[in-house]
Amino acid sequence: MSTVKLIEYDVASDEVRSVYDDIMSVRKSEWVNNFWKALANQPKLLKDTWNAIKAVMAPGSIDPLTKEMLYIAVSATNSCNYCINSHTAAARAKGMTDEMLMELMAIVGMANQTNALANGLQIEVDESYMNGALK
Amino acid sequence: MSTVKLIEYDVASDEVRSVYDDIMSVRKSEWVNNFWKALANQPKLLKDTWNAIKAVMAPGSIDPLTKEMLYIAVSATNSCNYCINSHTAAARAKGMTDEMLMELMAIVGMANQTNALANGLQIEVDESYMNGALK
Amino acid sequence: MSTVKLIEYDVASDEVRSVYDDIMSVRKSEWVNNFWKALANQPKLLKDTWNAIKAVMAPGSIDPLTKEMLYIAVSATNSCNYCINSHTAAARAKGMTDEMLMELMAIVGMANQTNALANGLQIEVDESYMNGALK
Amino acid sequence: MSTVKLIEYDVASDEVRSVYDDIMSVRKSEWVNNFWKALANQPKLLKDTWNAIKAVMAPGSIDPLTKEMLYIAVSATNSCNYCINSHTAAARAKGMTDEMLMELMAIVGMANQTNALANGLQIEVDESYMNGALK
Amino acid sequence: MSTVKLIEYDVASDEVRSVYDDIMSVRKSEWVNNFWKALANQPKLLKDTWNAIKAVMAPGSIDPLTKEMLYIAVSATNSCNYCINSHTAAARAKGMTDEMLMELMAIVGMANQTNALANGLQIEVDESYMNGALK
Amino acid sequence: MSTVKLIEYDVASDEVRSVYDDIMSVRKSEWVNNFWKALANQPKLLKDTWNAIKAVMAPGSIDPLTKEMLYIAVSATNSCNYCINSHTAAARAKGMTDEMLMELMAIVGMANQTNALANGLQIEVDESYMNGALK
Repeated sequence: MSTVKLIEYDVASDEVRSVYDDIMSVRKSEWVNNFWKALANQPKLLKDTWNAIKAVMAPGSIDPLTKEMLYIAVSATNSCNYCINSHTAAARAKGMTDEMLMELMAIVGMANQTNALANGLQIEVDESYMNGALK
Repeated sequence: MSTVKLIEYDVASDEVRSVYDDIMSVRKSEWVNNFWKALANQPKLLKDTWNAIKAVMAPGSIDPLTKEMLYIAVSATNSCNYCINSHTAAARAKGMTDEMLMELMAIVGMANQTNALANGLQIEVDESYMNGALK
Repeated sequence: MSTVKLIEYDVASDEVRSVYDDIMSVRKSEWVNNFWKALANQPKLLKDTWNAIKAVMAPGSIDPLTKEMLYIAVSATNSCNYCINSHTAAARAKGMTDEMLMELMAIVGMANQTNALANGLQIEVDESYMNGALK
Repeated sequence: MSTVKLIEYDVASDEVRSVYDDIMSVRKSEWVNNFWKALANQPKLLKDTWNAIKAVMAPGSIDPLTKEMLYIAVSATNSCNYCINSHTAAARAKGMTDEMLMELMAIVGMANQTNALANGLQIEVDESYMNGALK
Repeated sequence: MSTVKLIEYDVASDEVRSVYDDIMSVRKSEWVNNFWKALANQPKLLKDTWNAIKAVMAPGSIDPLTKEMLYIAVSATNSCNYCINSHTAAARAKGMTDEMLMELMAIVGMANQTNALANGLQIEVDESYMNGALK
Repeated sequence: MSTVKLIEYDVASDEVRSVYDDIMSVRKSEWVNNFWKALANQPKLLKDTWNAIKAVMAPGSIDPLTKEMLYIAVSATNSCNYCINSHTAAARAKGMTDEMLMELMAIVGMANQTNALANGLQIEVDESYMNGALK
């Protein structure tokens, strides 16, 4: 269980409530998940993190479902149970099928495998790849 | 520099050459990158890894460009310089713009941040998220 | 649950008991936590690890509370649930407030974020920073 | 070398220049490091990240030098060469001595060691530590 | 709990059952563990991963028990609870004693410690070690 | 380059020289590698780390070559370039062939892959594996 208290809506300050209200409004949902209730112990961190996530996960040159899948990829690599569960749920809500999740996992597994091989054998970057083939 | 010799095409066995030929053919390219030249020290590992990557990165329910971006997300998290450079180059070749790369990085950064927050505060998974909201 | 038996005081060898006694004496506490009961399966590892931690965490040019917070920062990054819980408890016992914990987490989150950005974009170290600006 | 272009001041947009100006002003320095020049490829990411770091690293219940050392602890654990160099330089500028750096490293090494032991042996959290001994 | 359904034998397709049969046959066991039941959501991933593991873990120039211990070393470093438990069980079944497990953990702990020290201090590779002393 | 000065033998204190002498004596070598020259900035850390490594890497229930390979497995997973190079060199000196290195890498790659899959799908530990099948 969390190492800080989770701040529930009915005991939250106005500053915290206003973030909770925005979270529920943006998500069209009627509850706030534990992640935010933990961050609410520092209202500024809560507000800044929510604003940052809201901006980063908004539609842009990458679509929202792909963004959730990228989030899962990082969270699986970092072994963050909370994040894997919450973003898998979010991705499903945005249309990720079991087939897509398994395909995603196949890539995440493969990437972790070849990362270990490339690092473990200290393979030097090919000149053609240098700078990510920046033009 | 790599901790094993890189096996060049002209000194490679027929078994290794046949994989190199397939790599160049699938990629419509005229060279083989160092990763494969290092794996060639164990022809079975070379062949199996290539076949696995070829299958995993092929078009499926997730498109090839998204797959490359997922690869970058994992590689950035694992700090694999080789993989970051090679898959950034591959993603660019498949159409990733600078704008998309920066948006991808914003998500990868944010995910690493909130992974650390959720783990560091030991936040318990909300019941609604349990099982990735599996239905 | 742990993959080795936890060695309780009353069944421990004299060698192990003498470390347990020192742990309780240094900490002015009346119990020994599971970490040490697991290491006790190899008395030398138990003894050496305890002596190393005792030396490293002692007051020095960095104060003991800061040391506990550094420990939490690493443990959050590594996703070590046991260590996060035990060192958060230890830091609280040494005076860490909720405010300090949240501020600590804000830094840990930010550092994990910018680590991913710097690695993911393969940003080259500025000459002025080379060698950690060693003089 | 970086996988995106580094945006120099003289070719930067007004939006980017204004962040660069703030960075130099806050730091009382006359140059901007590569990290920001890379982020400048997405002005919003540049601005938000700088504002977040400025807020997080400001004096609070944890002092600025300790904050830099916490940053180094995370960066060493994540193997981020850029961040290790830049934050070691920043910490030295704020008064970190060689003695303090070595003491910091001793803790970071020890934490990584015991994280691996606690995870590797799957040691269960003592009841007394549950919730980070949250009261 | 897992974010995908676990596919039990009696509801599995023939393709999946044939992998399950091979797993039980190779292991001379009468059950299939959850890892494979989760992968079975994508039969090709199930089959390829099983075939790869079967090949990689087979006796070769490294003996099977050592291979299991190498697996534990990586899993402990990555904080993969499932893998630590399953491969510790597998290693015990192949003859790993408590003494060996503790010795293994001592090395894993030490390696994680010195990895952090070498990265954290950005120590340059000695010329004599370059290329892993490749001859 | 390293963020602390490397302490060469001819400018080292007697305390440091005595550790250097022991390193060269145990290894039957005539030089000391950079890792120790960096740690020498804190003679106690140098001495304790050397004594710990000397004890941990000594022949025991696991043979010295296997121990070096375990070290490589962890270092590859953590992306520690220094450690990968130095321990690959040490393992070669103790008899590791290219064939063994490639087989080792195949396991390390596979373990990193399945770690990501098990974490990413949040697969629950089978009851039969609980406690690492501790009896």
